[in-house]
Amino acid sequence: MGNEGNKGITAKKNENFSDWYTEVVQKAELADYAPIKGFMIIRPTAYAIWERIQEWFNNDLKNLGVKNAYFPLLIPDSFFKKEAEHAEGFAPELAYVRGTEEGELLALRPTSETIIYDSFSKWIRSWRDLPLKINQWCNVIRWEVKQTKPFLRTREFLWQEGHCAFINEEEAKKNQEEIIICYKKMVEDLLAIPVIIGEKSEMERFPGAKSTKAIESIMPDGKALQCGTSHVLDQGFAKVFNLNFKGEDEKDHLAWTTSWGFSTRLIGALIMVHGDDKGLVIPPKVANNKAVIVPIFDSKNKEKIILKAKDLAKKLTKYNPLLDERDSYSPGWKFSEWEMKGIPLRIEIGPKDIEKKQVVIVRRDNGKKEFVPETNVTERVEELLIEMQKDLFIKAEKLLNSKIDKAETLVDLKKKIKEGKMVKAYFKNDKKVEAHIKEELDGATSRFIEKLSKKGKCVHTGELVDTIGYFAKGY
Amino acid sequence: MGNEGNKGITAKKNENFSDWYTEVVQKAELADYAPIKGFMIIRPTAYAIWERIQEWFNNDLKNLGVKNAYFPLLIPDSFFKKEAEHAEGFAPELAYVRGTEEGELLALRPTSETIIYDSFSKWIRSWRDLPLKINQWCNVIRWEVKQTKPFLRTREFLWQEGHCAFINEEEAKKNQEEIIICYKKMVEDLLAIPVIIGEKSEMERFPGAKSTKAIESIMPDGKALQCGTSHVLDQGFAKVFNLNFKGEDEKDHLAWTTSWGFSTRLIGALIMVHGDDKGLVIPPKVANNKAVIVPIFDSKNKEKIILKAKDLAKKLTKYNPLLDERDSYSPGWKFSEWEMKGIPLRIEIGPKDIEKKQVVIVRRDNGKKEFVPETNVTERVEELLIEMQKDLFIKAEKLLNSKIDKAETLVDLKKKIKEGKMVKAYFKNDKKVEAHIKEELDGATSRFIEKLSKKGKCVHTGELVDTIGYFAKGY
Repeated sequence: MGNEGNKGITAKKNENFSDWYTEVVQKAELADYAPIKGFMIIRPTAYAIWERIQEWFNNDLKNLGVKNAYFPLLIPDSFFKKEAEHAEGFAPELAYVRGTEEGELLALRPTSETIIYDSFSKWIRSWRDLPLKINQWCNVIRWEVKQTKPFLRTREFLWQEGHCAFINEEEAKKNQEEIIICYKKMVEDLLAIPVIIGEKSEMERFPGAKSTKAIESIMPDGKALQCGTSHVLDQGFAKVFNLNFKGEDEKDHLAWTTSWGFSTRLIGALIMVHGDDKGLVIPPKVANNKAVIVPIFDSKNKEKIILKAKDLAKKLTKYNPLLDERDSYSPGWKFSEWEMKGIPLRIEIGPKDIEKKQVVIVRRDNGKKEFVPETNVTERVEELLIEMQKDLFIKAEKLLNSKIDKAETLVDLKKKIKEGKMVKAYFKNDKKVEAHIKEELDGATSRFIEKLSKKGKCVHTGELVDTIGYFAKGY
Repeated sequence: MGNEGNKGITAKKNENFSDWYTEVVQKAELADYAPIKGFMIIRPTAYAIWERIQEWFNNDLKNLGVKNAYFPLLIPDSFFKKEAEHAEGFAPELAYVRGTEEGELLALRPTSETIIYDSFSKWIRSWRDLPLKINQWCNVIRWEVKQTKPFLRTREFLWQEGHCAFINEEEAKKNQEEIIICYKKMVEDLLAIPVIIGEKSEMERFPGAKSTKAIESIMPDGKALQCGTSHVLDQGFAKVFNLNFKGEDEKDHLAWTTSWGFSTRLIGALIMVHGDDKGLVIPPKVANNKAVIVPIFDSKNKEKIILKAKDLAKKLTKYNPLLDERDSYSPGWKFSEWEMKGIPLRIEIGPKDIEKKQVVIVRRDNGKKEFVPETNVTERVEELLIEMQKDLFIKAEKLLNSKIDKAETLVDLKKKIKEGKMVKAYFKNDKKVEAHIKEELDGATSRFIEKLSKKGKCVHTGELVDTIGYFAKGY
């Protein structure tokens, strides 16, 4: 661990985005390939980011009255067959274990609506038991046939999945909405990645959902990345899983349910949006170690300088700084290593600095270096972290805006998608029309739809319509 | 959810321990049976306990320099076959998925030594890369054939597994020791369950380990429950997984490894040790909600009393109190419900209390009720929580001590085990002898061995030996 550090990233982000990504993932020690195809190992640098995300969202869950629980990894195959759309949507991705006794086929969960509703049907009796709001943090398995890529598409990933039941559709919709807003706030404030909230078309909805809202971001290569989704499910689920309850009116009713989730994909988005040719850049708020202290010493002054560096580390405890006191590596080698690993601030402290009662602080994102008086270090670190977080977001927002375009004809739409844009275009909101457009677009799909008051011509049928689609290729 | 509350626990802890346990698990809403045999659903009350355990131990991990990561759920079957003892130990419990392309058999992890060492072999090059200290929180699958019981024996459970590599055996031993001490401290200080640290006999060791240390507690029915284990592994693992490194001496060496873990079984221990005929008792330190406020009101004074209760809840925010303001249930019904769910303190506030500027506080463990002046509530809550935590431990320690006995003959050993004791007895520390004794003991095994300076007669062979075993039935 660590010897890879000084080799540096060889691919350029602007020239070969895909190779650059793969190299950063490996060299910043974010993930490693597993011995089984399509699986990955999440290494500590990346896992710590996931833990900070969990902390943030667990706080949201608490405020929303959602409780964490844990449901089984294995789900009877028969459960998937109960809801037709859900069954169709997930069938190709299921992996199975065979139960020993009965020989029943057991699926490794790709998502847990079915097994959770099976419990809900036992727990919900009357309106008093609603709303019921449950979340779980777990691993899921989707046996991808497409090319896999660490964090972005793997056969196993980690996620949270929230599942709630309500007395009516209105409350379910409210929950769907408040969750997607929490997601947006988390991704923007914590990860410094700007996202757009939108509604999915019928074709792109979650299998079994009545409505799917998503937050999407656009990566530097122009591909959209779905960062989280929130669904109001069709009552088909409630029907087949008997989610009925006695209302205040003493009559039987069917509950309305929502489900919502985000996954370790977010780490992939973070790498792509903020990383640069030196490697990873971790936004300060989500960085486990917000600074690394690199003492610069020789054999004569080592003791004195290390002591000073330790004092400094203690002062900065709040920021959980790393202290790199290894003497088998040069300062330059260490600088590259920590840049590669994306630590927000580097604090250098050498003999001259001690003389001048100062330290050197270097920001990871823009490389700006400044001399800071010892007495002012804590305040300055705090300021720099806030500034860096803000600047990363502003830069990413500029990128996002530069990637959104519009088209009035299918030819123009195709051209702009090829250029790596997310393109807004009027289209007839109909499964068949959308399928036709998708065919023309070499894999690009509608990421959202939006109803406008002004009508326009459908790029496919030429009819006057009021819906636009946001088309883009996606991860 | 909640309607079960007023039915109360019908089985008595002292009369039918097993039924009592099952009832508490269900009625305190700790776990539910899953639709697949041998699996369970961990409900929010229990999951919150697990989260507090995670917080505590994550802090230990940080202090020990262990980093969290995540490794794949699926492990190539061939990995298990590499280390003979490990293979033999886990073979009966493996469940498999078949990989699509190559058709290789993939096991659902029962533990992750093999797949983690596969990564370690890539990450470890020189002595500079050591120690390497990794932990993961995850689900594991062991296809139990024995009768399953929620938390105690299920085919899937949650746990942490730590895996470390060191330059020599001495460092590995040190790690094994510091971990088992952390485990003891956590289980005793947080869960208020006294445990004994001991060394496992060759027969009872982890498959592939050179040494296994465990913490064990004794349950009210006299069965021992292993609460955590810490192993120094035999270098057999290091050999087959190529964990070699270049030493400071420029020569090749094999690393020494440790692994250690505890699981959601701890929740089972907590239920059994502290619970009573009213239901669950959660030790204050591990309780998510340390108090529940029950306002006592009628339609006339409701508003005023709820307002007061909310003020109180705000004052006690630090203790994350529940406020039960439902008006569809009576105060008595609520009292039973929260007693069943084990909330440490109940705070009642009614019209008379408001008049007298006081509240009523009732301790869950001993039912003691006291009137506390409003101005003194925070201080008194703090004191009562500390006292209750201490008292629960003292009570549990008395139980533990009352369950330990000794025997000098096999007949006596058998008799005392039947009486529900953990029994110390001299025996020849030899696999065959131990197997013979085990056969005689109707399923009881040696939980630990200990070398004494004073010799005694082996209960089986009659030879003079210096080792005693702690024999008991186990969960």
